[in-house]
Amino acid sequence: MRVVVPFAAEQPKTRLDGFLTPSERRAFARAMLLDVLAAIRETGNDPELLTTAPVDIDAPTTVNERPLTAAVNAIVETTSPIAVVMADLPLATPAALAGLFAAEGEVVLAPGRGGGTNAFVARHPGFRVDYHGTSYCDHRERAHRIGASVETVDSFRLGTDIDERADLAEVLVHGDGRARAWLDRAGVRLSHEGGRVGVTRTEHDENG
Amino acid sequence: MRVVVPFAAEQPKTRLDGFLTPSERRAFARAMLLDVLAAIRETGNDPELLTTAPVDIDAPTTVNERPLTAAVNAIVETTSPIAVVMADLPLATPAALAGLFAAEGEVVLAPGRGGGTNAFVARHPGFRVDYHGTSYCDHRERAHRIGASVETVDSFRLGTDIDERADLAEVLVHGDGRARAWLDRAGVRLSHEGGRVGVTRTEHDENG
Repeated sequence: MRVVVPFAAEQPKTRLDGFLTPSERRAFARAMLLDVLAAIRETGNDPELLTTAPVDIDAPTTVNERPLTAAVNAIVETTSPIAVVMADLPLATPAALAGLFAAEGEVVLAPGRGGGTNAFVARHPGFRVDYHGTSYCDHRERAHRIGASVETVDSFRLGTDIDERADLAEVLVHGDGRARAWLDRAGVRLSHEGGRVGVTRTEHDENG
Repeated sequence: MRVVVPFAAEQPKTRLDGFLTPSERRAFARAMLLDVLAAIRETGNDPELLTTAPVDIDAPTTVNERPLTAAVNAIVETTSPIAVVMADLPLATPAALAGLFAAEGEVVLAPGRGGGTNAFVARHPGFRVDYHGTSYCDHRERAHRIGASVETVDSFRLGTDIDERADLAEVLVHGDGRARAWLDRAGVRLSHEGGRVGVTRTEHDENG
């Protein structure tokens, strides 16, 4: 099965602006991407990259400057079955991904927090994505409309996309790959203020 | 196996203060608790309640006014195996809970966001809880220290504890029980501002 990983090469992780510099955001996004690609490879699949600009990553790459939804649909329209896995899932394990790929259903969705769709498998030619808004609900609705059976996989690790400062705590608590190592080097540490744990920067290694 | 559900009967869900009134927070917390108890019953287990004050709920109940950690440890110290499932997990399905209860490991942890521990099974008499801080890390460490094998269950549904306003969106997107119905009646709706989906109140049915 084709497994495609979309990646915003030029302006990744804009919601981490203010906590990480633009070049840091690019480096951290790349570390997360490498974690995702490695986890997919461990499932026995060969991931492909779908990027907004050329990147120096060892994987088959399609460059498409269009927005995420249009770029993914350009592939989904012509390929079935297909899996699409977001690049900001550094906690994704081979086991969690294998569960997604093996789940029955013409459309299999891995929800993210806030109504997102962090990964999916489509085995129906009529499926299309729309990442705007509450995409998980929209994708369920789309699947029902085209008569495709829908499954949802229940995974904390696939559900944890890293977009905001608070999300970095998840990487520090549960991660053990490149993204975790990058945060460690950058001096990002857990901080305990208020309810849930957050992060702060206690030091800054310029080589990080 | 004993399955215990701790419940803050008097001042539940304080982090929803400002969005829900104190009496609304009590009603919503009760709806979530009933969802959790129903899901546990569907796994074939009889849940027990551990509350800070007497409540009118049809389940065997222990009242303990002490803080959560002390109250849970008072039971954990004398019971093995034991499962403890938080009361603010309205998305918990029988399947997710059955996965937790069936997982091997002398200590089985279901992590929540922000380093929390939303549910666990302990099959080792030396295990104790500490819900303060990054409890997931502390519980792993405790298990290692006493020589207990540790497993982690990977569940978005068990990982989604409802504490803050943004969390309510998860109930609206994924829930179909009493907590979801309560939010619907209270006029809580999804709102799309910024990155992830949030919630707003568009109406307010005083009978809700």
